[in-house]
Amino acid sequence: MACDKCFEKPVIKVTGSENSFCKACFFKYFEKKVKKTITKYNLIEKNDHIIVAVSGGKDSTVLLNLLVKVLKGRDDVKITALAIDEGIKGYRDKSLEHIKKICEDLKVELKLFSYEKEFGKSLDEILKTYKGIPCSVCGVFRRYLLNKKSKEIGGNKLATGHNMDDEAQTILMNNFRNNIKVSARMGPITGIISDKRFIKRIKPLYFLTEKEITSYAYLKGLMDKFNECPHDSDSYRAQVRDMLNDFEAKYEGTKNGIITAFLEILPLLKKHYKEEEFDEIQNCKICEEPCSGEICKACTFVEKVIKN
Amino acid sequence: MACDKCFEKPVIKVTGSENSFCKACFFKYFEKKVKKTITKYNLIEKNDHIIVAVSGGKDSTVLLNLLVKVLKGRDDVKITALAIDEGIKGYRDKSLEHIKKICEDLKVELKLFSYEKEFGKSLDEILKTYKGIPCSVCGVFRRYLLNKKSKEIGGNKLATGHNMDDEAQTILMNNFRNNIKVSARMGPITGIISDKRFIKRIKPLYFLTEKEITSYAYLKGLMDKFNECPHDSDSYRAQVRDMLNDFEAKYEGTKNGIITAFLEILPLLKKHYKEEEFDEIQNCKICEEPCSGEICKACTFVEKVIKN
Repeated sequence: MACDKCFEKPVIKVTGSENSFCKACFFKYFEKKVKKTITKYNLIEKNDHIIVAVSGGKDSTVLLNLLVKVLKGRDDVKITALAIDEGIKGYRDKSLEHIKKICEDLKVELKLFSYEKEFGKSLDEILKTYKGIPCSVCGVFRRYLLNKKSKEIGGNKLATGHNMDDEAQTILMNNFRNNIKVSARMGPITGIISDKRFIKRIKPLYFLTEKEITSYAYLKGLMDKFNECPHDSDSYRAQVRDMLNDFEAKYEGTKNGIITAFLEILPLLKKHYKEEEFDEIQNCKICEEPCSGEICKACTFVEKVIKN
Repeated sequence: MACDKCFEKPVIKVTGSENSFCKACFFKYFEKKVKKTITKYNLIEKNDHIIVAVSGGKDSTVLLNLLVKVLKGRDDVKITALAIDEGIKGYRDKSLEHIKKICEDLKVELKLFSYEKEFGKSLDEILKTYKGIPCSVCGVFRRYLLNKKSKEIGGNKLATGHNMDDEAQTILMNNFRNNIKVSARMGPITGIISDKRFIKRIKPLYFLTEKEITSYAYLKGLMDKFNECPHDSDSYRAQVRDMLNDFEAKYEGTKNGIITAFLEILPLLKKHYKEEEFDEIQNCKICEEPCSGEICKACTFVEKVIKN
């Protein structure tokens, strides 16, 4: 058995017809896919300032490495890394070291924002009194800071490490829970184009599976310091993920089928839900960030959970 | 614990907020849901001649019973039962007795068509030489006869026993396999409205789960003679079914979420795929029935599998 592209020994099988690759041909396949996604969906344009959300995990590490590589020599496009320090001892402190080292190696400026400074308390402190699901408060704060800080830094796009598995899971979760309207805001590039209060989000790893990204990170030697958030408890997503992995193992191409079918109807969804979406967006009366009610979710949490 | 509607002892739990029902209140709930589906989606109109596809299974047995009940006194609407005899010894011969008895009891005329007479051979005979999956040839023949014979009998609508489980499974299967275009032809009422070559299909049990229909059939004493086709081998559907049952057990309302989300986007799909669909439909050069190529799938099978 040889690599489908050359005569070397294959190290990985990916989905598709030509699917056994040696290390070098896998890197080519992987990087070509990222470039194709960027070109097809116009993810990067002249004079962009791209903020890359980095968590220290495999997806965002691979993303930052590849964006730097792809944009080498493009003096008109600027990259800044953005990390959020939730304040989780034993996890974030370790991954922050990793993030700092990566950014140093790649010569990318890193902007760091913490819950403690922005909201008054670290997540560890919040959880001493808050007894809800950690991810519910943390998710609100993280999304809030990613949008607000990306704009403050002067970015016009936020690149995230979302991959095919993440997207296929979210599509199904939205179907199972009758949240189809939320799906209208998904895809390789998202954001209400004519509303500058929301930064556009781009997902260059959209067409790559988790397995492919993990393999790429491992084969490129980017894997050694990854660890997982101790509060990772989204059991619903975990069950959808396990189910999808089962189907993919039995019926190769299932994840790809889901996102391809979704991308076919996405323009219809975007068109249909656009007006409705515009109507709902106001500005928070406390922080002036965009929100669907009078007070945004982040300020509501600060008032209820942190100040009390 | 009492029934959520009265003070009797409950016999079943259904999804939703008021969900524990005694026998009488469950019958009311069930029949009200069917009536509401018929009204909301305009499944039955003045002067309709409705052909009911009966297999002898629980779904079509419940369907025929309910349609007769709902349409009692409506002299303008005619019902005819249509059964297909594939020629499967030990299965269809038994269920045909059941079908004949039901139709006799309900005073509904039964029209019976067999593969042997229509195509020259019974399924049992076909399978002596045909080595493909039985369901692939049988499904083509059955769908072909249902459409053609319904029109010949003079019907303008074909009622089938498809339930919420069937529909949720098909929606997901189409998503997983990137067949979203096929989904545009689904819903409680289907058929290309301005193309008389296709009979409109109606699904009055659309919003009822398999569990509810089985319970209704059992509690109404309609259950005793059901058996299953020995060739039932759609393992892909079976796996999607098992997975959905698992999710429903853990996250009540999953199936309902899937069809509700789907019905929200269905008008967009129908509008989008309509023109494309019209372009593709020709008439078979052998039998003149509508098809997507020059020769329809049924005639292709007759030429390849039966005549050779």
